[in-house]
Amino acid sequence: MSTAQQHKVGIIMGSSSDLDVMKKAADALTQFGIESEIAVVSAHRTPEAMVDYAKSAAGKGLRVIIAGAGGAAHLPGMVASLTTLPVIGVPIKSSNSIDGWDSVLSILQMPNGVPVATVALNGAKNAGILAAEIIGAFDEEVAARLSVYKEELKQKVKEMNEGLE
Amino acid sequence: MSTAQQHKVGIIMGSSSDLDVMKKAADALTQFGIESEIAVVSAHRTPEAMVDYAKSAAGKGLRVIIAGAGGAAHLPGMVASLTTLPVIGVPIKSSNSIDGWDSVLSILQMPNGVPVATVALNGAKNAGILAAEIIGAFDEEVAARLSVYKEELKQKVKEMNEGLE
Amino acid sequence: MSTAQQHKVGIIMGSSSDLDVMKKAADALTQFGIESEIAVVSAHRTPEAMVDYAKSAAGKGLRVIIAGAGGAAHLPGMVASLTTLPVIGVPIKSSNSIDGWDSVLSILQMPNGVPVATVALNGAKNAGILAAEIIGAFDEEVAARLSVYKEELKQKVKEMNEGLE
Amino acid sequence: MSTAQQHKVGIIMGSSSDLDVMKKAADALTQFGIESEIAVVSAHRTPEAMVDYAKSAAGKGLRVIIAGAGGAAHLPGMVASLTTLPVIGVPIKSSNSIDGWDSVLSILQMPNGVPVATVALNGAKNAGILAAEIIGAFDEEVAARLSVYKEELKQKVKEMNEGLE
Amino acid sequence: MSTAQQHKVGIIMGSSSDLDVMKKAADALTQFGIESEIAVVSAHRTPEAMVDYAKSAAGKGLRVIIAGAGGAAHLPGMVASLTTLPVIGVPIKSSNSIDGWDSVLSILQMPNGVPVATVALNGAKNAGILAAEIIGAFDEEVAARLSVYKEELKQKVKEMNEGLE
Amino acid sequence: MSTAQQHKVGIIMGSSSDLDVMKKAADALTQFGIESEIAVVSAHRTPEAMVDYAKSAAGKGLRVIIAGAGGAAHLPGMVASLTTLPVIGVPIKSSNSIDGWDSVLSILQMPNGVPVATVALNGAKNAGILAAEIIGAFDEEVAARLSVYKEELKQKVKEMNEGLE
Amino acid sequence: MSTAQQHKVGIIMGSSSDLDVMKKAADALTQFGIESEIAVVSAHRTPEAMVDYAKSAAGKGLRVIIAGAGGAAHLPGMVASLTTLPVIGVPIKSSNSIDGWDSVLSILQMPNGVPVATVALNGAKNAGILAAEIIGAFDEEVAARLSVYKEELKQKVKEMNEGLE
Amino acid sequence: MSTAQQHKVGIIMGSSSDLDVMKKAADALTQFGIESEIAVVSAHRTPEAMVDYAKSAAGKGLRVIIAGAGGAAHLPGMVASLTTLPVIGVPIKSSNSIDGWDSVLSILQMPNGVPVATVALNGAKNAGILAAEIIGAFDEEVAARLSVYKEELKQKVKEMNEGLE
Repeated sequence: MSTAQQHKVGIIMGSSSDLDVMKKAADALTQFGIESEIAVVSAHRTPEAMVDYAKSAAGKGLRVIIAGAGGAAHLPGMVASLTTLPVIGVPIKSSNSIDGWDSVLSILQMPNGVPVATVALNGAKNAGILAAEIIGAFDEEVAARLSVYKEELKQKVKEMNEGLE
Repeated sequence: MSTAQQHKVGIIMGSSSDLDVMKKAADALTQFGIESEIAVVSAHRTPEAMVDYAKSAAGKGLRVIIAGAGGAAHLPGMVASLTTLPVIGVPIKSSNSIDGWDSVLSILQMPNGVPVATVALNGAKNAGILAAEIIGAFDEEVAARLSVYKEELKQKVKEMNEGLE
Repeated sequence: MSTAQQHKVGIIMGSSSDLDVMKKAADALTQFGIESEIAVVSAHRTPEAMVDYAKSAAGKGLRVIIAGAGGAAHLPGMVASLTTLPVIGVPIKSSNSIDGWDSVLSILQMPNGVPVATVALNGAKNAGILAAEIIGAFDEEVAARLSVYKEELKQKVKEMNEGLE
Repeated sequence: MSTAQQHKVGIIMGSSSDLDVMKKAADALTQFGIESEIAVVSAHRTPEAMVDYAKSAAGKGLRVIIAGAGGAAHLPGMVASLTTLPVIGVPIKSSNSIDGWDSVLSILQMPNGVPVATVALNGAKNAGILAAEIIGAFDEEVAARLSVYKEELKQKVKEMNEGLE
Repeated sequence: MSTAQQHKVGIIMGSSSDLDVMKKAADALTQFGIESEIAVVSAHRTPEAMVDYAKSAAGKGLRVIIAGAGGAAHLPGMVASLTTLPVIGVPIKSSNSIDGWDSVLSILQMPNGVPVATVALNGAKNAGILAAEIIGAFDEEVAARLSVYKEELKQKVKEMNEGLE
Repeated sequence: MSTAQQHKVGIIMGSSSDLDVMKKAADALTQFGIESEIAVVSAHRTPEAMVDYAKSAAGKGLRVIIAGAGGAAHLPGMVASLTTLPVIGVPIKSSNSIDGWDSVLSILQMPNGVPVATVALNGAKNAGILAAEIIGAFDEEVAARLSVYKEELKQKVKEMNEGLE
Repeated sequence: MSTAQQHKVGIIMGSSSDLDVMKKAADALTQFGIESEIAVVSAHRTPEAMVDYAKSAAGKGLRVIIAGAGGAAHLPGMVASLTTLPVIGVPIKSSNSIDGWDSVLSILQMPNGVPVATVALNGAKNAGILAAEIIGAFDEEVAARLSVYKEELKQKVKEMNEGLE
Repeated sequence: MSTAQQHKVGIIMGSSSDLDVMKKAADALTQFGIESEIAVVSAHRTPEAMVDYAKSAAGKGLRVIIAGAGGAAHLPGMVASLTTLPVIGVPIKSSNSIDGWDSVLSILQMPNGVPVATVALNGAKNAGILAAEIIGAFDEEVAARLSVYKEELKQKVKEMNEGLE
């Protein structure tokens, strides 16, 4: 029988300076009872380590890879080229970024054959939820937690309305 | 035992004028032996039908929903708000679009809590492949076909190089 | 005989964090003697409540709906799809917005058949004035107050010039 | 008793070269039984005529003004500064436009005090529908026609789905 | 014989909040011995006063008009439509501006027949220098001061280089 | 006594491929009875010739220089750095331009001290009119012709309106 | 003694569909007597082949690598991460590109430590010339040819001017 | 025998206010044992000095010129037009810049015949490394230091991963 504990998500980023943004992906996964592992893997500084990471990801039981990067953000797309696992890309608005457009377009506009599932700028939390949805499509326990989460979102809006009065 | 035939992907679009772009998603899924169903569901012209579609999607066995839309493209995000399934958004460059920026940003920049897995402008083929990767993370048969596909991509580059000489 | 008191404007926003911006719409309406009601209605967190709000708006006597949202801002367009009332959209520059372009384009670029009357980024005050102009086209009392307001704008410029000297 | 025939909408544009785009506003109004008059009024070539047009608009019975312009598009905002009527602005993508951004921003980003209800690039049809919605908020006959129109939009999507099969 | 004192430049802006930026134009003119007068003239709040200002400018001896405005910046272009004098437009980056693009495009992209001499975002100092260059093309005294100014620019670079060592 | 014949405007462009755009500046000047001379002067291919042109311009009687260039358009700004004459810059949308943004920003965003009077993308006609306005500020004959021209613009709008009926 | 024949430049591109653009780099190098070799190397379809190409480039005598790619263009940056040779990146405006912004930003905005020498959109000819300049900095023969080439550029402008007359 | 000491790189910038950014290029070169000289050379304030600098650069033994500038950034391209040496351009995000787009496009989009090797916004460190790579292509000592540097980059990522645990 399938359980959330059987699934694991890899979270990688180009630099430890991205950790503040990217740990929100791990937090979201934890909230849905899904294990994750986090690592710094740089497309530009450790290209061979990136190749190794991507090629071994499926074999070590990862279901989804979440990759965050800023500027000319090549990590998500390169990892996607090296694995058949779904890769979620998180554009990060780094210093010297041109308003985030660079990382958004570097991740989103992948050529035919090698998709990256791109989320909003700095949207690591949503990357975690999307990974949970992917797992939830095959795991009823996770799907049920996602339904509960959606109810909580509604509940918060209800509380906001009470706060307005 | 799990087989590709057990999985089904829903493909929806705001207008039949988007069919030329979106059928590439269906073609890609067929290539990986995954069934899909295609429908016109408009966020702005048939909002109630959209709610019904999204809320019944998981129950009727869909694993992933692919939604394409142009301009102020609300279909992917609204469907994502109404289901726990992963939703892949395809920005479409329609006439009167402002260079495609409108559909890209309307789909990508979803708020925390409701992710959409966005692919490139007019990237319906990649949406199909991404759906296959999601299924392949839980179905070895599909994963194997994705590996074969990656080999074919390499082979094409090899042939291009032979053609250069 | 028609009076301003007979008219009411609905003001909605995706989150109570938008209240600081959106209450300027209510303030403007109050200035013209027009009643308004304010609520948090989220397209993505409370989609069914949004459908209910939009479908009941005309019946409960609203003349105009003002909807503010940031990022991939679907609230104004979705409400417009569900009512025949005029809907005024206020793009809000939220954190992680890509300079406000995302909310502007998500609200402005609506497809044929479902218009949203879009105002400037964070332009909630103008949304309130526009709602007053819509009511003023059918209510002489409100139109007269708008004429007074235009005189006050002139007066302020006159005072600015006196301040320069 | 109020009837649609009592209302009239003014449609203006900066040049007769904009007529192909702007007549769609007139067509939409005709569809809802609302009378319109169309004229060339240029902010930059006939500024005094523009002042006269705007100042006399309410007095001659117009309920709404629809103004279309391209490039540095000043007509909608200037007319809005000279009348208390609601003004709908239609950005037009003219030749030598910078992808339409110039007209969109020139119309949308009005300062506090002088709103323009902006619709999508080349969105004259939606401008006509928005004017009908404004009138429909005070005229049940027009509101009823708008409801019928919304049903027709749904019907077209239904036919599109039948065409897919 | 022509002297700099015979020439006068009008400096106008849409609001006294633009004064900090625009007074740099006056300072530059003073530096070249050219008289200027400064006033708040709003295209949107005082449209008739703007018409009067523009139509009387040449008659009261102005040689050049410098007009600064932010957002949907209509002042420079409208004034240009109402006078045969050269009009210099200064785009101002106001709060709620979309990064200054709105004012830049609203001023720059004027239609054929009605030019505005646009300078850089917040470039009021350069507007003053440009007005001096226009006058200097017909007044040798001003031209000579401009030559001195260009030498001073060179001198400052020389001093910077000495500071590097 | 001053007459239009006494004034001359220099028109330069980076390549003869820009001639189709730039000759409209010469045509406009001819219309106002102002002489012009046209030459290819390339900032990047003939930098020394550009320096010579700019430094000798005032001496040979030019009142204004109009410079058109595309892409990374350095000609207008460099000429402006080398003369005290007013320089009008015409951004040209060349092939491989990024939608014209490159030439617009390369010409407009000049640093303090060295202004360029920038007109709209491909706006060579307006460059010619602006040069005429500059001359007209000091030459009543040219000013009178500009007034006539403005009347003709009005007349054309009147004819457009007759054509609508 | 050093001669141009001793140097070789590698030219790579993501697909043979980029050949029409990229062969201009080879043509430019041939013009300066520099040998080049051209190959299809795809970051996303043949990532391992790309790693091999980049790591062996210096060893087989290449002095410079020119890499062209469109969309989310990762080839230049990834090759730069794997070699100490200078890498010149050519952004290519492919179909479905968002006006070329995606490839420009994906190549230009590299993080600290891994530069790419980026040239203009579709600027393969300039990439070839830049490679020649790099070699010419260490090879007088090539430098001399570059000086001749600069003279030819001047000569062409001279001929353009003769053609104007 | 060639040694790093034989090579020298010129670093120039438009103003001493750019020194904080540009000295990172000098620091990077020092790290690789390459000498550099730094100067303020302004395209717009000292155009003749710029011509002299560029024309004498090769003769005084410079191998590469690094030029940084903001806004309408003409320095890199103009220097490139006056020398056969490779020129590296550093776009600088100055105050009143339009988000850096102006300097990026002014430097990158050079016409055919006159390339500039453009690096990322404020990317002076990478400009220094790129200059080292250019020299390293002809100097084994520098190439060896670049290899060591690449190992250090990997080492830092390894340390980041240890820091995560």
